[in-house]
Amino acid sequence: MTETTIRIPEALIAKTISRGLSRVNAISEGGPGWTRPSYSALESQAHAVIEEEAVALGLEIRRDAAGNLFATLPGRDRAPERALHIGSHLDTVSQGGAYDGQAGVMGGLAVITALRDMGLTPATDIVLTVTRAEESVWFPVSYAGSRAGMGRLAPEDFDAPRADTGRSLADHMAEAGFDPDAVRNITPPTPARFLEFHIEQGPILDEAGEAYAIVEAVRGGLRYRAAEVHGTWAHSGGVPQNHRADAMLAMAELICAMDSAWTRLTAEGHDLTVTFGKVDAATPQHAMAKVAGHVGFVLDMRSADVASLEAADEVLRAEIARIEAARPGIRFDLGTQSRSAPARLSSSMAAMVAGGATAQGDAPRRMLSGGGHDAAAFSAAGWDAVMVFIRNWNGSHCPEEAMDEADLCRAVAAVVHAIAAEVA
Amino acid sequence: MTETTIRIPEALIAKTISRGLSRVNAISEGGPGWTRPSYSALESQAHAVIEEEAVALGLEIRRDAAGNLFATLPGRDRAPERALHIGSHLDTVSQGGAYDGQAGVMGGLAVITALRDMGLTPATDIVLTVTRAEESVWFPVSYAGSRAGMGRLAPEDFDAPRADTGRSLADHMAEAGFDPDAVRNITPPTPARFLEFHIEQGPILDEAGEAYAIVEAVRGGLRYRAAEVHGTWAHSGGVPQNHRADAMLAMAELICAMDSAWTRLTAEGHDLTVTFGKVDAATPQHAMAKVAGHVGFVLDMRSADVASLEAADEVLRAEIARIEAARPGIRFDLGTQSRSAPARLSSSMAAMVAGGATAQGDAPRRMLSGGGHDAAAFSAAGWDAVMVFIRNWNGSHCPEEAMDEADLCRAVAAVVHAIAAEVA
Repeated sequence: MTETTIRIPEALIAKTISRGLSRVNAISEGGPGWTRPSYSALESQAHAVIEEEAVALGLEIRRDAAGNLFATLPGRDRAPERALHIGSHLDTVSQGGAYDGQAGVMGGLAVITALRDMGLTPATDIVLTVTRAEESVWFPVSYAGSRAGMGRLAPEDFDAPRADTGRSLADHMAEAGFDPDAVRNITPPTPARFLEFHIEQGPILDEAGEAYAIVEAVRGGLRYRAAEVHGTWAHSGGVPQNHRADAMLAMAELICAMDSAWTRLTAEGHDLTVTFGKVDAATPQHAMAKVAGHVGFVLDMRSADVASLEAADEVLRAEIARIEAARPGIRFDLGTQSRSAPARLSSSMAAMVAGGATAQGDAPRRMLSGGGHDAAAFSAAGWDAVMVFIRNWNGSHCPEEAMDEADLCRAVAAVVHAIAAEVA
Repeated sequence: MTETTIRIPEALIAKTISRGLSRVNAISEGGPGWTRPSYSALESQAHAVIEEEAVALGLEIRRDAAGNLFATLPGRDRAPERALHIGSHLDTVSQGGAYDGQAGVMGGLAVITALRDMGLTPATDIVLTVTRAEESVWFPVSYAGSRAGMGRLAPEDFDAPRADTGRSLADHMAEAGFDPDAVRNITPPTPARFLEFHIEQGPILDEAGEAYAIVEAVRGGLRYRAAEVHGTWAHSGGVPQNHRADAMLAMAELICAMDSAWTRLTAEGHDLTVTFGKVDAATPQHAMAKVAGHVGFVLDMRSADVASLEAADEVLRAEIARIEAARPGIRFDLGTQSRSAPARLSSSMAAMVAGGATAQGDAPRRMLSGGGHDAAAFSAAGWDAVMVFIRNWNGSHCPEEAMDEADLCRAVAAVVHAIAAEVA
């Protein structure tokens, strides 16, 4: 066994993670929390920080046409199909947190820094992999950067408008210095191995008092990003209850109905989340003295199983039909549906991480990821992918998002153990 | 009887209303519908149009310190306490309609134009009265302009911030050319008589096929203009249903609960309307992939009886307590409550209008006003006030707000008959 022969440079791992997070999180738009839009100059600046760190480590630096960064520590066997990529993304949602994406990049950086310090030449190339444009709140395209790099964007994805600017993904790519035509014609890289550290974005590990976990599957999503309720604008004091077509009331009924449906579907054994993340009855046309004639909303449903997403979507349409029938003048328009596929991750890579954890006396649980992640995109492209979840609290995708860096250090050490075991 | 002696210049009334509406509605901010904020330059421009019309009629022009316009056709008896004021306001809600306020001003203008054309010197002064700042969506102060003119604003009302600019009522008054200190020290005018034509802002007359009606009471309001729900921001895919404190779901539950409460209270005999006119879960922090940690909302409840408002407010607090108890992490904050008192209007003035209607063969119904109006402010100041509602459709406080000018002409003719009867 190798346990006794491995000396993990724990202080160096901690210092690397801490420095990397500080440097990247110094880059943000103003306002609460952190905002680095996909394919923005801020995201590019964050990439430049990591490139600088990688250069300092003497890694081989490469960028693909879509701007994804690859910094390689050469292994004994340099075959690309056996390389172990470790990384995540550096863009954030609007007013997001300090760890989503960033923690995974720093985890990869810390693994390689540790290997260098240990003087260990790994069995395969270890590739710090920093993707672009993972957060699909900006462009209605899942994992736009990593999928672009693997030649897996559909032609229409390049036209997807950014939620705030209205300008296309291709436009923003070009503005960030990448040629959309080159991306359209990218040669997909050889599928290899991908490991992503990421905060859990849920309460399970925190409540269980566990530092990290191995993720076996990533939930897929079924979304309506620009749905609407149409009713009739009316004076708040002048129109009796039974004469109203109140779009906000119809919206509230749908939200409550879908919450009940979620409980019911879960009881029936479905894996599911249902979230109305945005509800807009606060345009300049909305006012105290008006019954709302229009409400905009965004609905996000997620599941590990496509069948459960279909079941939830069927309930959604039935509830809408029921509300429309009960309330003359109310009409829902769900708009375009977008989806991301659920992903089963690699059991062999899960076993590899579990081995490293065992080597340091840990027994991380296996769990599901509710959030979509680049790992799902790599998995869909035929890579062996796995995720390592880090305990976090205070929610996620918000300025208060919290994580103990020591938990990430512990998970990084487990992966270093696992890589060392591949050499032995 | 006078019926046979009166020749109403119907074509002139129609032309006056049509011209006045066209001229005033040419003045608006861009965007759908009409937007003339309270104490804005646009409201001042609209006032200048009516002043020009009044000057052309040879009326005596006067403005009070708060900017309310009075254009007087002298009567036989010039005692101010017997004068009949006829008018309304020219400000609008954001993206409002073509008739709310405007119709009442043109009604007053048309009455005086008709009297002039008929060569009839009325029994008392007839005063075209154009108020400022009636729409309380801008400043959280009911009937700010007319109440200012009657010396009935509270000292703190002058500090009320405009919803969009955040600057005070006093500031905007000054910007429009009126001295807030002069308004603070205004000498209240002698209470007289006030008549306001106004669109119904509800479906009752339209459904009954009736052109106009006499309003006997104006509903008062109980409002929460800056209420909030606090929950916990969380990742949409990562947090199970029973671990969420979803502010939007709590909001939806309250909206549905208050709709049921409304039905129940109405069945118990209460007069009531309940409207969540603004619900904001669409700030930059809200996103597809986030459970909402915050929702802002505005609640407007109206009734002809204070006791019914109290009953509804009690139910509101009970429902909030119930939702908070059932959903750990959810906390409602209703913020400041504002009120406007219900107003019983003048039965003698209602009888006067009814007499004029009878003279032309009409039998307008008596009804309640759901919207608050300047007439309520005059009534509260001890004036004899009455309203004449004009049938309208397509809602109100919205660009689609519709009215047949012929209906207003008919109501104007009734009032001209009533004024003529005072001379006889």
